[in-house]
Amino acid sequence: MIAGVQRLPLAVRRDSRGAILPILRADRPPFRSFGEVYVSLVHPGQVKGWNRHRRVTCNLACVAGRARFLLFDDRDGGTGRLDEQWLGPADYALLVVPPGLWMSFGAVGAEDALVVNCASEPHDPEEVERRALDDPAMPRGWPAP
Amino acid sequence: MIAGVQRLPLAVRRDSRGAILPILRADRPPFRSFGEVYVSLVHPGQVKGWNRHRRVTCNLACVAGRARFLLFDDRDGGTGRLDEQWLGPADYALLVVPPGLWMSFGAVGAEDALVVNCASEPHDPEEVERRALDDPAMPRGWPAP
Repeated sequence: MIAGVQRLPLAVRRDSRGAILPILRADRPPFRSFGEVYVSLVHPGQVKGWNRHRRVTCNLACVAGRARFLLFDDRDGGTGRLDEQWLGPADYALLVVPPGLWMSFGAVGAEDALVVNCASEPHDPEEVERRALDDPAMPRGWPAP
Repeated sequence: MIAGVQRLPLAVRRDSRGAILPILRADRPPFRSFGEVYVSLVHPGQVKGWNRHRRVTCNLACVAGRARFLLFDDRDGGTGRLDEQWLGPADYALLVVPPGLWMSFGAVGAEDALVVNCASEPHDPEEVERRALDDPAMPRGWPAP
């Protein structure tokens, strides 16, 4: 895994009425600060990215559907490394993405993917860099295999 | 509406890939503190509650399906008041429920409801009181009409 990225398994608590899907608590690691929580919905086959945060750590959980994340580390100027993570309720986990990494993610399968992001700072457009999925400087990773 | 409860409309930002559903930001009202974020999934026809928090404010958004919330205020000892709120992506909003109110909620319609709760403190079972849906001291409100 790319340095600084964490995948932390989370336990879904199910009962006859439904389930509780925990995401992040202020009194336990990996929490550092709370800036904003929002949901990113992705339609089947669609992809968001590439985005890179300058300062923000993203704490990501996929609570419906199935999402594929690609993380690209070009911080050493050429020794880029590509990691892939699949998230969803079936193998429920928190994905912690530190600032400085390129991220893209898409919904795989027939359902919309719902990704909760609990970000360490409120959204600031000046803090996010964007590149097209087909930017020649970026790895080829989409569509999903 | 019951004193202290707020329903704040939120704008869903849709595009061809999906949508962004904002929930809560640390730099804007009604934010006060961050304790925990989790998702409560409710199957169609199922109901969770009654619960009453002694200290925690719940910031609630329904990001999939449709949820019906009942809030019951018995704080004045007999002059109880019952409020009903419907939440879902179609009329997307943040429901702020202060401590001291009884709350129950269920999924209405054919889909699971997904309710994000951004709570002002981490979960503490000692802080939550529970009563059965058919407790004679509580209002009759379920099943949904």
